[in-house]
Amino acid sequence: MAPLDYSTLAFKDIVLTLDGAIAVILINRPKQRNSINKNILIELKKAFSIVDRDDRVRAVILTADPKAPAYCSGADISGGWDLLWEEEAEKEGDQAHRDSGGTLSVVVYRCRKITIAAVNGHAAGAGVTAFQLPFDFRFVWSGAKLTFPFVRRGIPAEATSTYLLPRLLGHSRASSLLLTGATVSPDSPYIRELYHEIIPRREDVFPIAKAFAQELAGHTSQPAYTYTKALIQHPGDSIEENHLLDSRAIRFLGRSQDAAEGVNSFREKRQPKFSDTLSTNPNPWFPFWRSLDIIHLKSKL
Amino acid sequence: MAPLDYSTLAFKDIVLTLDGAIAVILINRPKQRNSINKNILIELKKAFSIVDRDDRVRAVILTADPKAPAYCSGADISGGWDLLWEEEAEKEGDQAHRDSGGTLSVVVYRCRKITIAAVNGHAAGAGVTAFQLPFDFRFVWSGAKLTFPFVRRGIPAEATSTYLLPRLLGHSRASSLLLTGATVSPDSPYIRELYHEIIPRREDVFPIAKAFAQELAGHTSQPAYTYTKALIQHPGDSIEENHLLDSRAIRFLGRSQDAAEGVNSFREKRQPKFSDTLSTNPNPWFPFWRSLDIIHLKSKL
Amino acid sequence: MAPLDYSTLAFKDIVLTLDGAIAVILINRPKQRNSINKNILIELKKAFSIVDRDDRVRAVILTADPKAPAYCSGADISGGWDLLWEEEAEKEGDQAHRDSGGTLSVVVYRCRKITIAAVNGHAAGAGVTAFQLPFDFRFVWSGAKLTFPFVRRGIPAEATSTYLLPRLLGHSRASSLLLTGATVSPDSPYIRELYHEIIPRREDVFPIAKAFAQELAGHTSQPAYTYTKALIQHPGDSIEENHLLDSRAIRFLGRSQDAAEGVNSFREKRQPKFSDTLSTNPNPWFPFWRSLDIIHLKSKL
Repeated sequence: MAPLDYSTLAFKDIVLTLDGAIAVILINRPKQRNSINKNILIELKKAFSIVDRDDRVRAVILTADPKAPAYCSGADISGGWDLLWEEEAEKEGDQAHRDSGGTLSVVVYRCRKITIAAVNGHAAGAGVTAFQLPFDFRFVWSGAKLTFPFVRRGIPAEATSTYLLPRLLGHSRASSLLLTGATVSPDSPYIRELYHEIIPRREDVFPIAKAFAQELAGHTSQPAYTYTKALIQHPGDSIEENHLLDSRAIRFLGRSQDAAEGVNSFREKRQPKFSDTLSTNPNPWFPFWRSLDIIHLKSKL
Repeated sequence: MAPLDYSTLAFKDIVLTLDGAIAVILINRPKQRNSINKNILIELKKAFSIVDRDDRVRAVILTADPKAPAYCSGADISGGWDLLWEEEAEKEGDQAHRDSGGTLSVVVYRCRKITIAAVNGHAAGAGVTAFQLPFDFRFVWSGAKLTFPFVRRGIPAEATSTYLLPRLLGHSRASSLLLTGATVSPDSPYIRELYHEIIPRREDVFPIAKAFAQELAGHTSQPAYTYTKALIQHPGDSIEENHLLDSRAIRFLGRSQDAAEGVNSFREKRQPKFSDTLSTNPNPWFPFWRSLDIIHLKSKL
Repeated sequence: MAPLDYSTLAFKDIVLTLDGAIAVILINRPKQRNSINKNILIELKKAFSIVDRDDRVRAVILTADPKAPAYCSGADISGGWDLLWEEEAEKEGDQAHRDSGGTLSVVVYRCRKITIAAVNGHAAGAGVTAFQLPFDFRFVWSGAKLTFPFVRRGIPAEATSTYLLPRLLGHSRASSLLLTGATVSPDSPYIRELYHEIIPRREDVFPIAKAFAQELAGHTSQPAYTYTKALIQHPGDSIEENHLLDSRAIRFLGRSQDAAEGVNSFREKRQPKFSDTLSTNPNPWFPFWRSLDIIHLKSKL
C-alpha cells in the first residue's frame, strides 16, 4: 500500500502536514478565535488516529497560527451549550451522552507517539483541557492567558480534566485551578509545572517545540518511547505489579534491534540510529492493561 | 420550615456565624492555645454537617482569633493520649476504634460547599492535618510554625494525613514532612504548594480568605462547584471511567438554570447570577461513587 | 543469639558498616565507575534484608566514595544487555523474567527502616532509578549529572521508575524526565522536588545525610516511623479506607511504650528516648495490605 499523502486529506478546520517524522496539526479557525465546533473535534480525532497508526510519524504537534487571536478559545457557546446536545443522548438517555472535549482527550491520551501541544496563544476551556492536558509535553507562550472557566459558567470541569490535572500537578494546584475558574499566566505557581518550557516570544513557541520534537524523534526508539509512556499511564496498582509489567516490557524490547543499536551506539560513542516501529515489533502482550469501552451501545439495532 | 438561626446554636468551643452565603467557624479555645479536645471535634462535625445541608451557605471558613496563641495547637496530650481511649473501642475491640481527628477529616472532605482553612497562627498535629488538609483551599500567615510531630511522639501520622498529603503535594514532599516530624514555615519548599495564598500579616489572613470566599461564592454555580469537587476527589480509575463520569455530570448540569445563566451572562458580557442550589437539582446518580462505611457496628444491640 | 558482626560479612562490591543505629552501605566499584553488575544487586538486596530485620538499625544510608567517578553509573552495558538475559527466563519463558534493577527497588521500598540515598556523584540509569527512587529521602550533590537514558538506549524505563517517579513528582515532571531521556542537574525544575536536600560540596553529602539520619533515628519512634511509611505507601483506596487503617495503627501504637514516652517527654519538655523496636511490638494486623508475589514459580520441580 502506498503511504498516505497527507495533502490529499480534505480537512476544513485543521491542517495536517508531515515533515519527515514530525506531523503538525494546525488549528485553522482564526476568524472564529480558534474556537471549538463539532467538526474540528471530529477532524482532530481523525488526525490523531492517522498519526497514531502511521509508522513514519514519531511525533505530532498541535499548534495554531501565532497571529491568530488565540491558540484555542474553547467551545463556541455563543449559541448556547450546543455541544452538549447530541442526538444520540436525546434518544437513548443521559447515559449515552459523551462530552465532546473528552472524546478528544481520550484519543490524544491513547496516541502512542510523542504528543506535543505548542500553545502559542491564549487558551480557555477545552483549549486548556482537551487541547493541552492529554499531551506528553506542553510548550507555551509566557504571555498566554489560560482560563478554566467551568464553575463560572454553570457546568463541571470537563474533558477528563478532573482526572488529568490532579495527576499532572497534584491535588493542591489542580483544585486551585479547577475550583476557582481562574485565569492564570504560565508562570503562575499554580500552573507552571504543567509546562515543559515557557517561551517569551509567541512566534518562537512552535519552532522550539518542533526542534524539540525532531531531536527527540531522531534519537529515541519509537517502541521504547511507547512502552515507557504506557507504563507511566498504566503503572499497575503497586510497586510489585509495576515490576512485573516493566520486567515483561524490558524483556520484550531488550531483544529488539533498537536495544542492540542502543548498546552499539553507546560502545561506539555515537548517536543511535533507531529503526524499529510499532509495526515491526508486534507483541500480543501489548496493550497489557484493560480499557473501559466508552462507546455507547444503542438499545435498538 | 424557617431557616436555622445560627445564633441559637449552643456551641462551647467554637462559634458558628453566617454572613450572607459565607459561614465562618471560629476555633474558640484561646486559653487552651486552641488545642483539640473531644468536644470541639463533636462541635466541628456538627457545624460542617449544618453548613453542608444549608442551601444558603456557599462557602465555609475555619479560622481562629489572630491574637490567639495558635490557630490550632493540636490534641491536648498534657493528660496523655486520652483522645485515643474511646469507651467503644475498649468494649468492642481495636477494630472499633476511630481516630478522632480522622472523623473530622472525613466530614470536612465530604462537605459539598467551598471549604477554606484560614490559618492565621501556628498549627501542630491535627491542627495541620484535620484542620487543614481536607479543605479545598488553605490561606496561611507566613509566620506560622507548622509541625507534623507524630513520629517524634510515638504514634503514626493521623487524621487521614497519609492519604491526603501525598495526593496534595506528591510523595516526595509528603514524606519529607510526615517522616521527619518537621516544623516548617509556609514558604518552605516542602510545604508551600499546600497553600493557595501565603499572607505576610497575621490579621490579614481571615479578611483575605473571606474576600476570596465571597468572590468565589458570588460568581460560581453551587452545583457546578460541587460536581467538580466530587470529580476531583473521585475521578474514576482511568481516563475512560473519568470520561463517562464527567460526561454524565455535564449532561445533567448542562440543562440546569445555572448553565443557561452561564451562557447568557457570557453573551451579555456580564457577571453571572447563579441561583441553583444542591436542593433544587436532585440527581439520583449523585453521589456516583461508592463510600466505605466507617461506622462501627456494635456486636450487641 | 549474638548480634551479627557486620565486619564478618564477605561482600565484594559493597561495604556494609554499622555505627550505632546507622547502617551505611558503600557502593564499592570505583574502578568500574560504580556501575551495576549482577553481583552488586545480589549483595545490596542481602544488605537491605539484613538491616530491615536488625533491631539495632534505625536508618540505612546508601552512598559512594565522593572521589569515585560516579555515585552509580548504571548497568554496565559495554558487553550488551547481559543483565536482561537470565537463565531462568530463557528456560521458563518471558513471563519469568524479572528486571534486575526492579528487584532491588522492591527490596528497598519494602525496607521498614529510615532509608536514605546520599547521592554524592553522577548517576545514570538504575543509578537514578533503583539507587534513588525507592528511598524515603534523597540527598544530592548539586554538581551531579542525573541521566534517565532509557528511551535513548532502546528499552523502556526500568526498575519501577514508571511507578515511583510520577508518584514522587507528579506526572508532568515525571514525563519530562522519563520520556526525554534527559540529563539534568539536581536544581533543574524537572527534578529538584525529588531531593530532601541539595548540597554544594560533594564531600559534604554523606556527612550531612548521616547527621540527618542520626538526629531522626535518635528522636523518632521506630514503630511509629514504620507505620507512617507503610500508610504513605499503602494509603487505602479512599479517605474512608485510610481512616480505618490509620485508626487501627494509632490504636495499636497508642498503647506502646514509645507513645507513653512521647507524652512524658512532651510534658517534661525534653527530647524523647524511644526504646520500642519492630520486634518488641508484634502485631498480627501488620502488614495490613496485600502484596503481589513477584517470585516466578517454576513449571518443573
